[in-house]
Amino acid sequence: MIESLNELHRLLPAECFDASPSALAAFQSDGLTAFAVKPRAIVVPRTCEHVVQVVKWCYQHQVPFVARGSGTSLSGGSLPHADGIVIALNRLNRIIKLDLDNRIAIVEPGVINSQLTAAVAHAGLYYAPDPSSQQVCTIGGNVAFNSGGAHCLKYGMTSNHVLGLKMVLADGQVISTGASGGEPIGPDLTGLFVGSEGLMGIAMEITVRLLPKPESFHTVLAGYRTLQEAGAAVAQIIASGLLPAALEIMDTLSMQAAAAAVGATYPKAVEAVLIVELDGNAEAVAEERQLLDQMLLESGASEVIVAQDAEHRANIWKGRKSVFSAVGRLSPDFIVQDGVVPRNQLGFALQQIEQFSREAGIAVANVFHAGDGNLHPLIMFDGRQAGQLERAEDLAARIVQLCIELGGSITGEHGVGMEKRQFLPGMFDEPSIDCMKRVRRACDPYEISNRGKMFPDAEADSLRMYGSHPLETAGIASRM
Amino acid sequence: MIESLNELHRLLPAECFDASPSALAAFQSDGLTAFAVKPRAIVVPRTCEHVVQVVKWCYQHQVPFVARGSGTSLSGGSLPHADGIVIALNRLNRIIKLDLDNRIAIVEPGVINSQLTAAVAHAGLYYAPDPSSQQVCTIGGNVAFNSGGAHCLKYGMTSNHVLGLKMVLADGQVISTGASGGEPIGPDLTGLFVGSEGLMGIAMEITVRLLPKPESFHTVLAGYRTLQEAGAAVAQIIASGLLPAALEIMDTLSMQAAAAAVGATYPKAVEAVLIVELDGNAEAVAEERQLLDQMLLESGASEVIVAQDAEHRANIWKGRKSVFSAVGRLSPDFIVQDGVVPRNQLGFALQQIEQFSREAGIAVANVFHAGDGNLHPLIMFDGRQAGQLERAEDLAARIVQLCIELGGSITGEHGVGMEKRQFLPGMFDEPSIDCMKRVRRACDPYEISNRGKMFPDAEADSLRMYGSHPLETAGIASRM
Repeated sequence: MIESLNELHRLLPAECFDASPSALAAFQSDGLTAFAVKPRAIVVPRTCEHVVQVVKWCYQHQVPFVARGSGTSLSGGSLPHADGIVIALNRLNRIIKLDLDNRIAIVEPGVINSQLTAAVAHAGLYYAPDPSSQQVCTIGGNVAFNSGGAHCLKYGMTSNHVLGLKMVLADGQVISTGASGGEPIGPDLTGLFVGSEGLMGIAMEITVRLLPKPESFHTVLAGYRTLQEAGAAVAQIIASGLLPAALEIMDTLSMQAAAAAVGATYPKAVEAVLIVELDGNAEAVAEERQLLDQMLLESGASEVIVAQDAEHRANIWKGRKSVFSAVGRLSPDFIVQDGVVPRNQLGFALQQIEQFSREAGIAVANVFHAGDGNLHPLIMFDGRQAGQLERAEDLAARIVQLCIELGGSITGEHGVGMEKRQFLPGMFDEPSIDCMKRVRRACDPYEISNRGKMFPDAEADSLRMYGSHPLETAGIASRM
Repeated sequence: MIESLNELHRLLPAECFDASPSALAAFQSDGLTAFAVKPRAIVVPRTCEHVVQVVKWCYQHQVPFVARGSGTSLSGGSLPHADGIVIALNRLNRIIKLDLDNRIAIVEPGVINSQLTAAVAHAGLYYAPDPSSQQVCTIGGNVAFNSGGAHCLKYGMTSNHVLGLKMVLADGQVISTGASGGEPIGPDLTGLFVGSEGLMGIAMEITVRLLPKPESFHTVLAGYRTLQEAGAAVAQIIASGLLPAALEIMDTLSMQAAAAAVGATYPKAVEAVLIVELDGNAEAVAEERQLLDQMLLESGASEVIVAQDAEHRANIWKGRKSVFSAVGRLSPDFIVQDGVVPRNQLGFALQQIEQFSREAGIAVANVFHAGDGNLHPLIMFDGRQAGQLERAEDLAARIVQLCIELGGSITGEHGVGMEKRQFLPGMFDEPSIDCMKRVRRACDPYEISNRGKMFPDAEADSLRMYGSHPLETAGIASRM
C-alpha cells in the first residue's frame, strides 16, 4: 500500500497530496461528528484531469475513495474509508459558465451553494435549493445527497434544479448526462446520480437551472401554545391550496438554541412557532397574505409577527437555519434525525416523539420542514456519561421506525449515508435493494466509490448506527 | 418458437392470449404510423401476476417484449419487435388507491391520463401532466416516456409527479422504488425508470402526486403577423419573470388544421398565434394579467382574444391539442418532430426551419411549447409520391441536427424510441452511451425489454429513421 501510495503521490503535483497525520485527522469526520475514521491519504485535485488520474489509480488498485466538499453531511455520507483515499474537491470551485439569458449555470463541484446565488444576483436570479448549511456546503455535496432546504416545499430538491452532469465514473471514465436544452434523454442518468450518495462516481461539472428572484416576500412567525396546534395549522394551510415557499416549525428547545446562538427572538410563552413565507409578485403575495392571516387567526396563534423588511426577514431565517449548530450550545452531543411522515400524521408523530423522549429521559428539540412532513428531531445527550449514547441511539431508532410504520421515509434530505444503513431494508425488500446494487455496480464494479455507505451489508457494518465511540471506530480501522 | 408460444399460452387464461392475424395487425403500429412490424403474439394480462409470468417466460426464452398502453408514442417507442411479444396493459386500468388527504394516487399502468383527473376532480384536485393525447394515452406510457404537455412549463414533466413505482424487471423480479412519504432514497431508481422508454421493465403500480386545481385561469390567444414576433413575445414574457402555466405557438398551417378538424377560430391575417395561460388564485392571476396585457400590447400583437369562460378556454385548448391528429386532414402523411432549442435561439431556429422547408419543397407546420423551447414541426408529405418520404426524412434530420448544433436536444418529450436512435451519438459520446447500456443491463441482462429502441446499434438498425415503406418493414420482419 505504501509503495502504491507513493505512486499516487507522483501522479499529482506535490501540493495536491497529503498523508500527514494532521491532514488525516482534519478529514476524519463530517457533520455526523460522533464518527471518526482516518483515511490513508488526502488528495486535493486542481483539475478534472487530476480527479480522473486519482480515480483510475483507485480503480487499478481497488482502493476505496470518497469525494467530499465541505463535509457537512449529517448522515456520515462523506466519512472516509479506513482503507481509502479522500478526494477533497474544494479547489474545484469555479463557476464555469453563466448563461443568464437561458438561466443556466455550469459549476464545478466545490462551488459553495450560496456563492452561486451571489454570482447571479445582479441579474435578478438565484439558485433555489437552500440547505441550512448553504453558506458552507458545496453544490457537489448537494448533488450527491439531493439536498433540500426550507424552500423546497415550493421549489423542489436539488434534483429539480440539475439539468446535466459531467461525471467521472468509478473506473475513471468521463461521461456526460442530461441536456441543458431540454428534458433528460433515455435512461435518466442525471436523475440516477443526483442523490446516489457518491456511490457511482464524482460530479465534475454540474449544469443547474437558475430562477428569477421573487419580487416580493411575506414572512410570518406565528406562536402557538402547543406543538400540535402548530401542526394543525400546517395541515390547514396546505389543505387550503396555498403553496407557501416555506412552512417550518420550531419548538421551545429549538427557539432557545437559536436565541442563545444568534440572538433570535420569539413570542413569549409559546411551545412552538410556525414560520410561513409567501413569495411571488407583490399583488399575488398581498392576496395570499390575506388568506394566510385569516387561517393563522382561526388556528389559534397567540401571536403573529410579520417581517417588516428584508433585514427582519433575514433574521428570522438566520434563527431557523442556525438551529442545528446552535443546539451544540445546549447539549454536548446530539443526533439530528431526518425522517419523513405523511403530512396528515404530523401531529401524531410529534406526540409519539414527545412520549419516546420522556420514556428515554433524553431531551429532543424539534425543528422541521412541516410542509413536507420532514422531521428534524435533535436528540440531545452527553456522550461522556455512560449509557447516554446508547439511549440516544435507541431513541433515534424508535423515531426512524415510527416514520417507516406511518408510511413515511427514513430520510427526507440528509441521505442514508453511514447513519441509517440498517433501516434501508425497512423501506425496500431484497429484490429492490439488489437492483440498486446492480445499478451501482454498472457504474462502479468494485464498489470503491464511497464504499460502506447506504447498504446495510456494506463493510464496517459493526459500527453502531448513530455515532460510535472513537475507540470502536479505531478498532475497525486497525483491523484493516 | 411455436411450441414455446403454446407454453406461454397455457400460462395464462385463454382470453389473455391472442396470436391471430387480426390481433397481430392491430398491434403492428403506434403513433409513428409509417412503421409497421407484426409481433409473434399479444398478451393482455389482467393481473400483475400475469405480467410476471409472461416476463419470466420471455426471460427464460430470451424473447423480446414490449409493454404498451394505447400506442400513442410518436417516436415508435411502443412498436413491436418482429421476434417478440406485445404485452398490452390496457386491462390493468384500476386506480388502486386515492389518498386525497396527502394528495397521492396509486394507479395501474393502463389508467388513461385524463381519467385520473376525472376521478379526483370532486376533491378539487388534478393530475398535472397533460400530453395532447391525454384523453387516450395511459399513465404507464407517460411514465415510460416522461411525457410532458402544454402545462409542463410551470408544472414539470411526468418525472416531477411520480413518487414511486412497483416495477417488474426484465427477469420477472418485482421491485419497489421511491417513497410516497418523501424524497427518493439512495440511487433514485424512480428517476431512472421514468423516461427509460421501457428498456428496464414494466411499471405495475405508479404512485403519483395530485395537485389542487388552480382557482382561476386567464387564457389568451394573441395573433402576430410573423412567427418571429410571436417568438420574441415568448422571450420577453419569460424574461419578465412571469411563469405562465402554458406558453404555446401555432403557425398558419397548424391553425388551418385545427380549424378544419374541430372548428377552432383564430385571428385573421396572422402568421402565428401565441396561447398564454396564467393560473393560480384569482387575485394573483388578475395582477399577472395586467403585466401580461402590457407585454402583449408592446410585442405588436395584432389581435388579442381572451377566453371569456371555461367553455371558451376549453375550445382554445381543444384547437391546440387537436393539431397533431388534425394535420392528417391537410396531408396524407406527416412526421412530428420533437427537438428542443435554447429559448433564446427560438427565433433563429424557426427561420432556419422555414428555409429548410423551402429548400426541400416540403411544407412544415409549426406548433410548439414555446416556453420550453420544445419545437414540434409537423413535416407534411405524401408517401405515395416517389421520393417524398426520403425528402421529408432528410428535412427532419436537418432539423434534429440543427437542435443539436444550437445546444438543444433531440427530444423534448416524445423520446428517442425507434425514430431518433441514430442521433443519440450526436448528444452523448461513447462512454456515456456505454454507461446507459450497462445500467440498462443491470435491470435487463438479455436486453429483451423493448429491444431495438433508443440505442443506435440496436437490432433493426437498417430501418430508416423516419417511417419506412411498409414493404421495407415487412422485408425485415420476414428475415427474422
